[in-house]
Amino acid sequence: MAPQPSTEYTIYRGIEGAVKEASAHIKPLGPKEILVKITHSGLCGTDLAYVPYGIALGHEGVGIVEAIGSDVTQFEIGDRAGGGYHRKSCEHCSYCLSGQDIWCYERSIYGEEDYANGTFGEYYIGTETYLHKIPEGLTSEHAAPLQCAGATVYNALFSVAKPAERVGIIGIGGLGHLAIQFARKLGAEVVVFSTSRSKEEEAKEFGASEFYLLEDIDKVKKPVNVLVIAGNRYPDWKKFLVKEVVARAGTIIPLAAPNGNISLPAFRMFFDGYNVLSSLVASRAKHEEMLAFAASHDIKPTIEQFDLSEDGLQEAIAKLKSNNMRYRGVLVAKGA
Amino acid sequence: MAPQPSTEYTIYRGIEGAVKEASAHIKPLGPKEILVKITHSGLCGTDLAYVPYGIALGHEGVGIVEAIGSDVTQFEIGDRAGGGYHRKSCEHCSYCLSGQDIWCYERSIYGEEDYANGTFGEYYIGTETYLHKIPEGLTSEHAAPLQCAGATVYNALFSVAKPAERVGIIGIGGLGHLAIQFARKLGAEVVVFSTSRSKEEEAKEFGASEFYLLEDIDKVKKPVNVLVIAGNRYPDWKKFLVKEVVARAGTIIPLAAPNGNISLPAFRMFFDGYNVLSSLVASRAKHEEMLAFAASHDIKPTIEQFDLSEDGLQEAIAKLKSNNMRYRGVLVAKGA
Repeated sequence: MAPQPSTEYTIYRGIEGAVKEASAHIKPLGPKEILVKITHSGLCGTDLAYVPYGIALGHEGVGIVEAIGSDVTQFEIGDRAGGGYHRKSCEHCSYCLSGQDIWCYERSIYGEEDYANGTFGEYYIGTETYLHKIPEGLTSEHAAPLQCAGATVYNALFSVAKPAERVGIIGIGGLGHLAIQFARKLGAEVVVFSTSRSKEEEAKEFGASEFYLLEDIDKVKKPVNVLVIAGNRYPDWKKFLVKEVVARAGTIIPLAAPNGNISLPAFRMFFDGYNVLSSLVASRAKHEEMLAFAASHDIKPTIEQFDLSEDGLQEAIAKLKSNNMRYRGVLVAKGA
Repeated sequence: MAPQPSTEYTIYRGIEGAVKEASAHIKPLGPKEILVKITHSGLCGTDLAYVPYGIALGHEGVGIVEAIGSDVTQFEIGDRAGGGYHRKSCEHCSYCLSGQDIWCYERSIYGEEDYANGTFGEYYIGTETYLHKIPEGLTSEHAAPLQCAGATVYNALFSVAKPAERVGIIGIGGLGHLAIQFARKLGAEVVVFSTSRSKEEEAKEFGASEFYLLEDIDKVKKPVNVLVIAGNRYPDWKKFLVKEVVARAGTIIPLAAPNGNISLPAFRMFFDGYNVLSSLVASRAKHEEMLAFAASHDIKPTIEQFDLSEDGLQEAIAKLKSNNMRYRGVLVAKGA
């Protein structure tokens, strides 16, 4: 039974710099809104960056539809739904009209509703056009990290870079371990660069055919055409761009932005024709495609499960911060 | 009458840091080679960078075919031919096999023939597949600067960026004044950024619909989708990327590489989805297309003519270095 409007429920948001339990009230659903009872939610590095803003956290949610607004056509009660970005179409700017609502300026500033509505919580209310049905072949705990990490790497590899002969991936974490799987299943030869030899075996199980420590990149025999930066630090560009690790006219896609500048050697960039492309999560069309692709090719994040509670969140966040998560933390609701 | 093999002729190359007259000898033509009597040759900033290497200078040449090798099929004696890059296909690497011979590693180091063969000279010998017929609608003096400057901006605008709604061009010089014309004729709204108000009128004659001083870019009312850096300095990226001068998910194409790094604000790059694309001259296919397009749309460089002689070259180089060339210097052979 769906909770009545005004029923209180638990969410987790940044309070005084930490993730704390807080409460929200079920609001009456708008005509295109659906109420999702969250069962699983992935923990993304971006959640940590949102803590100081005080908004409700969690944006890799999966759950069960408990109620639908009067004009909802794509979901029924009992369906599994995934999503959770703080994102919505303004429905009139050129970005939103072309499905690039990611870039919409009007939604750049968080609204009041974002403070009470995240996927770390008992419920999540979303517009149906911003939620995605979970394909049958995907379990909810595996589908959760795909809602952000999966969409992010799929969009970079498929929509921005396009499938390439050889794809290099730097960093095996929440994004990287999915990037290896997607790239391999999209047909690429996958070359992994890491700081840790301990990840070699798993990288190869995920689909890498070559593995190099970052200090050994001069051993690369054939350059990659695409280089995805899946960690949160940039590599030593001079080593990557000068030593023919990335082929001429190759594509570099950073999937995170450290503070400061991205500084590339201008002469090499120009005369060797490197391209630096941006990819930010995915359009809703690419998101749907990614879920179907993951289900069809049996792509699964490697996860560690935690209770969806203040304690569970703090435990998961500590593990993520200490760089020991293998490879994505998933918060699991009681009874899910 | 074509000169006999071993006939001596004049070229101009870097000697002890200056451009000097030197001599070369007509060599017997290979089966696919053609001998071009140079009538016009554009002066490109890159020629100045080549001076220290001692190679024969000039790569924006146009002239009359005086002799052809035994297997030449695309040129006849008397045709006008243009070209002159120090470039050739190795015919087996992946770059050359796909028409991207610009990136061929085997041709990265200049060979002996490059020291005796440039388009600043009486003759130029080239492989027929690397020379281009000049369309009837183009005069030779106007066709010369198209061989590098024209190919460079056309490739950036059409092949790399693709036609865009609004194209920004920074810098009105040899490249910029052609970029404005090509972009306009390719259908774009052209927005020009310059340091000098004195160029506004001409920019508009070339096809710009808006003109801003670099210090006034906060007056831009609607962002550009593509930004071509046609000068030899990078702009203040923070002003261009933060103030919505370039639209989100916009494309930036630098057409030159200063020493040092290209340093872009990482956070804006990532969250606003900017792409930095490289474009280096053009493939031979795009070069042909560019010439036809220029002829069909009456695109003409604005040129200043100089004698193709040591004195003429020094005069032209001095003008280019002092930033007073309007907008491309063309060396003209005696009697052409």
